[in-house]
Amino acid sequence: MGLGRVKSLPFEVIEGEEGSMSSRLVVVGGGAAGMSAASAARRVDPALDIVVLEAGGYAAYGLCGLPYYLAGLVESADDLLAYPPSFFREQRRIDLRLNARVTQLDPQRQTICYAQDGRERRLGYHRLIVTAGGVPVRPPIPGLDDERVFTVRTLEDAISLRSLLDAGRIGQVLVVGAGYVGLEMAEALTARGSAVTVVEALAQAMPNLDAPVAALVEAEVRRRGVDLRLGTRLEKLARAGDRLVARIGGQQLSVDAVVLATGVRPASSVAAAAGAATDQAGALLVDESMRTSLPDVFAAGDCVATHHRVLGRPAFVPLGPAANKTGRVAGTVAAGGAASFTGIVGTAVVKVFDLAVARTGLTLTETLAEGLRAVATDATGKSRAKYYPGTSPVHVRLVHTPGGRLLGAQLVGAGDGVAKRIDPIAIALQAGFDVGDLVAADLSYAPPYAPVYDPVLLAAQAANAANAIASQPNSLAV
Amino acid sequence: MGLGRVKSLPFEVIEGEEGSMSSRLVVVGGGAAGMSAASAARRVDPALDIVVLEAGGYAAYGLCGLPYYLAGLVESADDLLAYPPSFFREQRRIDLRLNARVTQLDPQRQTICYAQDGRERRLGYHRLIVTAGGVPVRPPIPGLDDERVFTVRTLEDAISLRSLLDAGRIGQVLVVGAGYVGLEMAEALTARGSAVTVVEALAQAMPNLDAPVAALVEAEVRRRGVDLRLGTRLEKLARAGDRLVARIGGQQLSVDAVVLATGVRPASSVAAAAGAATDQAGALLVDESMRTSLPDVFAAGDCVATHHRVLGRPAFVPLGPAANKTGRVAGTVAAGGAASFTGIVGTAVVKVFDLAVARTGLTLTETLAEGLRAVATDATGKSRAKYYPGTSPVHVRLVHTPGGRLLGAQLVGAGDGVAKRIDPIAIALQAGFDVGDLVAADLSYAPPYAPVYDPVLLAAQAANAANAIASQPNSLAV
Repeated sequence: MGLGRVKSLPFEVIEGEEGSMSSRLVVVGGGAAGMSAASAARRVDPALDIVVLEAGGYAAYGLCGLPYYLAGLVESADDLLAYPPSFFREQRRIDLRLNARVTQLDPQRQTICYAQDGRERRLGYHRLIVTAGGVPVRPPIPGLDDERVFTVRTLEDAISLRSLLDAGRIGQVLVVGAGYVGLEMAEALTARGSAVTVVEALAQAMPNLDAPVAALVEAEVRRRGVDLRLGTRLEKLARAGDRLVARIGGQQLSVDAVVLATGVRPASSVAAAAGAATDQAGALLVDESMRTSLPDVFAAGDCVATHHRVLGRPAFVPLGPAANKTGRVAGTVAAGGAASFTGIVGTAVVKVFDLAVARTGLTLTETLAEGLRAVATDATGKSRAKYYPGTSPVHVRLVHTPGGRLLGAQLVGAGDGVAKRIDPIAIALQAGFDVGDLVAADLSYAPPYAPVYDPVLLAAQAANAANAIASQPNSLAV
Repeated sequence: MGLGRVKSLPFEVIEGEEGSMSSRLVVVGGGAAGMSAASAARRVDPALDIVVLEAGGYAAYGLCGLPYYLAGLVESADDLLAYPPSFFREQRRIDLRLNARVTQLDPQRQTICYAQDGRERRLGYHRLIVTAGGVPVRPPIPGLDDERVFTVRTLEDAISLRSLLDAGRIGQVLVVGAGYVGLEMAEALTARGSAVTVVEALAQAMPNLDAPVAALVEAEVRRRGVDLRLGTRLEKLARAGDRLVARIGGQQLSVDAVVLATGVRPASSVAAAAGAATDQAGALLVDESMRTSLPDVFAAGDCVATHHRVLGRPAFVPLGPAANKTGRVAGTVAAGGAASFTGIVGTAVVKVFDLAVARTGLTLTETLAEGLRAVATDATGKSRAKYYPGTSPVHVRLVHTPGGRLLGAQLVGAGDGVAKRIDPIAIALQAGFDVGDLVAADLSYAPPYAPVYDPVLLAAQAANAANAIASQPNSLAV
């Protein structure tokens, strides 16, 4: 029994909870983090009473799959589910309650309130895990409250949008925001034959890249026919019959639908209202065991700030791998096991048309915002031996201190072999490498997969040579 | 002037060397290591007299490209050259002498003898770099001395073999050896429509992999129609008109050509005869600056033993990246600059039909041969999100101490995205990671490129769980 002695629940027992003698773990949210947490808890404690409250009608799917479902690369919405609800209910004996929206948390009485089928319900817990995910940021723009305005943040959103696409009713579409979700959506909608305009208030796409690297992505997006308007805001949206008229930078644009991809904020309001500590972004603060500041309340997934190894402090970086891992840790510990999540380095990759666009650590922009002294070194190499068919350029930017300490990397190139080239740099950041250590790396080589000096090595050599010239003439470490 | 004071050369000056007042660097071998060395030396010292003696008729090409030239993926032999001879001669002012086979080294007199155009010549040096490469191992089998028996170790070999292929004269071929070169050749010859038999004396293909991992490769090779005979020796070869009759395991096989891919040994004989220290494999021993035991004699490339970080001692691992890097270090230091080669971890990758086959560090077999206590943990994951088109299995084996210290990895899977997955493990070995550190790695995720738990992470989790169960019940580090 993971939780030790079973306390009697200090509140009236409601609707079918009578007589339960086992410990109860309640998980708020049935996404990747929540179902990872519930499953991990089940592995630790076969007798635990595990309830998952999911606000939507689907559980255990990754949001990252939605663009590919919309593009038609994934045929059915069910294909996106890790497992169907019956698997969790029957095989893992998890009481998965769908369309159950949590409204209130009382950490003193150890109860949680939720709305389901139009009724308010209350449930006691011994341990609680909040995995409520993220909430789309909705800019204060008139007219956004329209059924043809989509935030692709739930499977329901995606199903609605896809039904319109399948019916051929989205000839023209406006995407608001040119971050990675906005560009994934631009690609998906282009693949469906829609004419896509993307507006981005900032002067560059992909604000999590440095501008010179983002420029490579912008060129690809435009090359593929997307009307990308940077430094431009959506000012107003209005219905016009079956269409929407958007005012963008003073111009009018008539579209069939609008996709909002203006970022997410942590869905921490219920926990925060109950007193859970958050960071400036509103993300729940947790320790390595994913404990919040509230007793017996854990949190995981997109609603928490995770330890960023390069920053040396918590950061809100809502991505899939950490959601799964933090969920697993929270579930393991909440059920009485031992686990820890030691942090991220900020690795992310996205496919934008033919390009893999990857980053890890910090961008130069981010280092400057942190007040760190840093420089960037850029190199362009090839994805394969120069003579092997299908070779294409790979651009690598390394961010490092003037003394050579590695702080981050960005990488852009075409083809399946490019994306995973960010991973050795992620490990190097975890290990605290200097660029000189990276120069000495024994990376794989074969003509179909890499040139003899991988682009990552070329960038490290360039960064190291700059440092070496500064410190020691004629020095060339290999 | 990198070499400091110019000594007068202590021997009679020969054929056009008269009156040279500059320091002279002689490089033996014009392959990847040799041309890297000469080019690096030129960068350090613009005034250095640099002579490269290449035994063959081509310089500055990688051997790794030969299978793709034979397969017809690379049209012309010239495409394999990093640069043409004129580039080195004119742009880099390197005196590149082709068809110049070195026969003798006199380290006391600082002279080297070589044969060219049927004449014996002698050349003095201030510094010498030996990059003589590898020599194909020729098993003592009767009949191998036939023009239809090829060792694909030079561009000349490959050009001869390709002319026969282009003429449609190789309907059936025997490859001797199922190491990575043998299997690359099997793929190339299959692509040209030849019926290929591969014989391997050992009980498994790819002896640099553990048998269970090699079995995945064997299955792929057979699936693609290659007649792979393991535990079988070529016993004898005999001419029969225009064909060769091979006796294999007591059977007769009639073929149009034989390709020997039975490994290489270091081409260290001239240097060793002059007293240079070698390891048991005959590879030249060098320090971090690539100095041999002989004064003013450096060595680099496939003829040296390099420091193996995991073994903690020199090892003979003749591969392209180290050849290029050690060449560059040798040239830099020989010309008076500072550089060091700090070692390898044993990373290699090869394409075998649809599979990328990669390794780094040590195999379990190799750890046992070293007397190390080690175990292997296997996991099979997916190359992409399960719902994304083109997902395929990726098998990862981690080799680690019973306490969790990472010692090596092997990886097999289909597609361009698989090969580079060995690189994060190579960095982890360089950094001295435990499997627990690897579990905590922040590796990239996006549905087109990886599942949320990359196969590398799955293997690390499995290895770590085995360790954790042994040491601490209910523990699960993430």
